[in-house]
Amino acid sequence: MKRVLFNYIPSLRYSSDSLLLKTGDKLKQTRIFSSQDLVQFSKLSFDANPLHLDSEYAKKAGFTDRIVPGILVASLFPTIIASHFAGAVYASQTLHFRLPVYVDDEIIGEVEATNIREMKKKYVAKFATRCFNKNGVLVLDGEAMAVLPTLCPMQT
Amino acid sequence: MKRVLFNYIPSLRYSSDSLLLKTGDKLKQTRIFSSQDLVQFSKLSFDANPLHLDSEYAKKAGFTDRIVPGILVASLFPTIIASHFAGAVYASQTLHFRLPVYVDDEIIGEVEATNIREMKKKYVAKFATRCFNKNGVLVLDGEAMAVLPTLCPMQT
Repeated sequence: MKRVLFNYIPSLRYSSDSLLLKTGDKLKQTRIFSSQDLVQFSKLSFDANPLHLDSEYAKKAGFTDRIVPGILVASLFPTIIASHFAGAVYASQTLHFRLPVYVDDEIIGEVEATNIREMKKKYVAKFATRCFNKNGVLVLDGEAMAVLPTLCPMQT
Repeated sequence: MKRVLFNYIPSLRYSSDSLLLKTGDKLKQTRIFSSQDLVQFSKLSFDANPLHLDSEYAKKAGFTDRIVPGILVASLFPTIIASHFAGAVYASQTLHFRLPVYVDDEIIGEVEATNIREMKKKYVAKFATRCFNKNGVLVLDGEAMAVLPTLCPMQT
């Protein structure tokens, strides 16, 4: 039986041997999107796509259950970045939705710094952004670019 | 004084002289993101970036007010597509955040069909995706690809 966790508190991990963000560093967060999350996101976004809200509709369309809106899954990336770097400003994001993410799936979001350059006393950082399911299968990937006010991550 | 509309109902427009979606067709939706929307999205995404929640912080960082999370603005695109094509499945999205979107700004989201091909009785559609502010200035653009179950848009 799948776990259903409302108000699931994500866990944050920061893997680095340095106090400052550097190329190769990975920031991770685990998240489960619940039925309640899907309903709330639908109300907020006005996206009433039945694939996200109606199990029977989703099954008839060939899925095993309701799928989590891709944009909601992708929200993991700025959340991970801002959790470590308050005041981060998003510049770009690409998203390739490889496999469906289902309601109540455990998803691991990961951002890996691939390039960092200083600009006007701030830092422009590129990240490889990926989401995996609990079996380690890639479900979403892409790249993000953000302007960070500091390279010193907050420890959460 | 800026308008503050809670539970703002987006307006949808579909401009085409055909009953079936074709290249060049544009779908549009107007949206205002309120303070309440920003708080709700923060609770849902766990993104507590103060740029989205704290006016004073945002002003100190050089903005004129709280900025709407880019991913929340981008949710306009799948919403517009699914509003016309229920059961649409998102395959990819690129996002370039050109200018900040502020709380209570009126934003016009637009998706323009740029390529449509049939595949296994469904349709793979590419869209140019853009958001403009009420002065007509581009604030966000990119491309989306979605699989549509039909080319016949629902009239809303």
